[in-house]
Amino acid sequence: MTVGNLTLHTDKYQINMMYAHWKHGTHNERVVFEAYFRKLPFGNGFAVFAGLERIVDYIEQLSFGELELNYLREQEEQYEEQFLDELRQFKFTGHIDAVLEGTLVFPNEPLIRVEASVFEAQLIETAMLNFMNYQSLIATKAARIKRVAPDEILMEFGSRRAQEADAAIWGARATYIAGFHATSNLLAGMRFGIPTKGTHAHAWVQGHDTEEEAFQKYAEALPNQVTLLVDTYDTLRDGVPHAIKVAKWLEQQGKRMQAIRLDSGDLAYLSKQARMQLDAAELPYVKIVASNDLDENIIVELKAQGARIDSWGVGTQLITAFDQPALGGVYKLVARLKSGVWEPVIKISGNPEKITNPGIKDVYRIIDAKTGKAEADYMAMQTEDTISKGDPIKLFDPIHPFRNKLVQQYKAIPLLERIFDEGKLVYKLPTLAQIRDYHEQQLDLFWPEYLRKLNPEPYRVNLSKDAYELKMRLIHEHQQ
Amino acid sequence: MTVGNLTLHTDKYQINMMYAHWKHGTHNERVVFEAYFRKLPFGNGFAVFAGLERIVDYIEQLSFGELELNYLREQEEQYEEQFLDELRQFKFTGHIDAVLEGTLVFPNEPLIRVEASVFEAQLIETAMLNFMNYQSLIATKAARIKRVAPDEILMEFGSRRAQEADAAIWGARATYIAGFHATSNLLAGMRFGIPTKGTHAHAWVQGHDTEEEAFQKYAEALPNQVTLLVDTYDTLRDGVPHAIKVAKWLEQQGKRMQAIRLDSGDLAYLSKQARMQLDAAELPYVKIVASNDLDENIIVELKAQGARIDSWGVGTQLITAFDQPALGGVYKLVARLKSGVWEPVIKISGNPEKITNPGIKDVYRIIDAKTGKAEADYMAMQTEDTISKGDPIKLFDPIHPFRNKLVQQYKAIPLLERIFDEGKLVYKLPTLAQIRDYHEQQLDLFWPEYLRKLNPEPYRVNLSKDAYELKMRLIHEHQQ
Repeated sequence: MTVGNLTLHTDKYQINMMYAHWKHGTHNERVVFEAYFRKLPFGNGFAVFAGLERIVDYIEQLSFGELELNYLREQEEQYEEQFLDELRQFKFTGHIDAVLEGTLVFPNEPLIRVEASVFEAQLIETAMLNFMNYQSLIATKAARIKRVAPDEILMEFGSRRAQEADAAIWGARATYIAGFHATSNLLAGMRFGIPTKGTHAHAWVQGHDTEEEAFQKYAEALPNQVTLLVDTYDTLRDGVPHAIKVAKWLEQQGKRMQAIRLDSGDLAYLSKQARMQLDAAELPYVKIVASNDLDENIIVELKAQGARIDSWGVGTQLITAFDQPALGGVYKLVARLKSGVWEPVIKISGNPEKITNPGIKDVYRIIDAKTGKAEADYMAMQTEDTISKGDPIKLFDPIHPFRNKLVQQYKAIPLLERIFDEGKLVYKLPTLAQIRDYHEQQLDLFWPEYLRKLNPEPYRVNLSKDAYELKMRLIHEHQQ
Repeated sequence: MTVGNLTLHTDKYQINMMYAHWKHGTHNERVVFEAYFRKLPFGNGFAVFAGLERIVDYIEQLSFGELELNYLREQEEQYEEQFLDELRQFKFTGHIDAVLEGTLVFPNEPLIRVEASVFEAQLIETAMLNFMNYQSLIATKAARIKRVAPDEILMEFGSRRAQEADAAIWGARATYIAGFHATSNLLAGMRFGIPTKGTHAHAWVQGHDTEEEAFQKYAEALPNQVTLLVDTYDTLRDGVPHAIKVAKWLEQQGKRMQAIRLDSGDLAYLSKQARMQLDAAELPYVKIVASNDLDENIIVELKAQGARIDSWGVGTQLITAFDQPALGGVYKLVARLKSGVWEPVIKISGNPEKITNPGIKDVYRIIDAKTGKAEADYMAMQTEDTISKGDPIKLFDPIHPFRNKLVQQYKAIPLLERIFDEGKLVYKLPTLAQIRDYHEQQLDLFWPEYLRKLNPEPYRVNLSKDAYELKMRLIHEHQQ
């Protein structure tokens, strides 16, 4: 995966803005940016945040070496040498608060909040969004698939169709967070400790004179983990009977064949027929693995048709998030420190959903004390004390006033955790297994209507009254 | 971008097949695999091959270090230690022939042909497809955009929405091959020598008390390259008039403002109005840059509406190939060396287009001697001598017999070039500028009806009579 110096994995305009601030002596002005997305992908009811570990690594390695500085010097003759000296000293010294990986997240709430000098805060925008957008997108897609196949083994098989190497590797990690069980990619396995799976390809069968010989030889070589791909020639006439012979031979060795794999054709019909053949041969323990352009919709259909599939290998559709291959995460300035006071900042747009929520906000998940279930996410100004005092919270929807609601007995879980404090990593990265468990606990917080694949109920993400009034005030000020 | 040891960027089944071959002593069996795709993306009439430079780097760095070997040892207890010793010695020693980057390519023709021991040929499948699939996909998408905006400046702006870092960086390179002029990504600029572009974001404007002040300060800092983003508040009422003031100030300094940038709203209307305002202020030289979820279809529409846009910044839709985010390239065994003779190999499928073309093939671009234009691509068995003798070629389409045609006066350009010979790199990698020029020359070889964005005429890719008959014979053999 990408290693080495990623400091220049940024847009040129970031460096230009850094230069212009430096030139005017404003580069140490303190600012707050928030990263969030505006719209859930795939029509899903939630997204799964991922990418934090990568972001932590990235922040820690940030530095301009001579290679980078020479490039910038050549690239832009307007940059003064003292500016490059300033970059040579660069180190991230700000705060970063972020949602933890595996958290269910929703539109418009801050997922990463950066408080730093404008010099530092601009540099890191591009890479942070790049990591957050992709990894969260794939974790969300994987969560959709997990939702429709909760009891089966799910394997990520997409490396060859991924959008380059990083996507294959970090994508595999994102699917594991969301409940996948294994990946085919060994580099992802080695790097992250994800279990890896895979047996043989069509080429193994084609590389022998007969399918029977190919199966037998595979089983002889790796008898403890035999899954045979049965569709190179004719699945039901040749493939399954040949696999059955090998399973019987394995039984004589005191071993059990694990599975057969179907990779083409009508998976519903073939899996039912293959199951019958296996059962008739008294091999009820031999599982059936399916692959071939699967996604959550096809899996639901196959299950509805009674397909007898124990394990799904999901490739292209998952690793590229084929039906929506980008999460539109953005990173917006929300406040500037002026004479020691935080001044909220807004971005206006003709497009109402693109108007930003100004000011420094915290975000809480409001859990109903009785049911233990999430009622809403609640964004309040950092200066408000409603939550800390445990006062009732008024949830209100400015567009649909009938959706107002007073919540009195609740637990408020802050979603943002301090990751870097004055540039120092203060957060202990959890293991991937811990992240995966945490994600599962997150799902338990939500009523199923928010989680379903099709037409989920929209989960409430509300601004506090103060936050809403601030926004309205700034809009009016700009209109005048 | 990804550096470091990518040897384990492969699917586990590759290593399992290598192991099973090794266990049976067949790992040095010589085989030929071909990589190709079956269907053009985006409904386009052609694809643009890219990824070769990355593949060359990958092949050259292949090696199993102790880190990799220890991981494999832990991962699979069935692997014998001598197998790991074999891997420790691993070096790619085979031949690789490939189409050159920037070449226009079509379905079912071999783009990469690997002749090697099965041990070597299996290992490299996953990564080669991963690189070829993504980079060719993005080069093709970029070529579509270039087609509709041949005379404007095209900039790749997608880093933050790319599918992780490699996609941002190698994707930027692919767009440059296909005629884009610049990228915003500095790491891609540094690594590949692609020109980089970018000025400032909305945050620059929000970070000042007024837009006017923000523009003025930007221009003071970087007066030689001023492009101002005019849509932070109100484009026509505030943004453009403020930009005009700065342009006038720059004129007093003996400098010229480069452009304004529109990033939201109705780009057709706004660009026409902005053009009028700029012209009325006697600033005809100030260009208009547009961005905001552009793709080839939106650009065509905007141009049809008379938009006055000189330069397009294209992001998400390009860097993710949003409307079809995967090219389904595959890698199939086509021949095995048995007792010194190449035996062709086929893969049957219920799906006719998934049946492979057996045997070792060369592929030629047949250029009509009179017009200098490409007539067809022609795949012939390596053992045929029609082309070398300059004999007439019979182009025939087995499905549509009326499309038969005899070509007599032609030039046949072989598309595959030897890249690695017995593991040695024998191909001199061209510069990126050379690849870009070569791609432009490639386009000149084709009649425009093959190149148009919508409903292009399908370009012929034909099998020779011998290749077709071989395929039919193997299908019949398998059916019996």
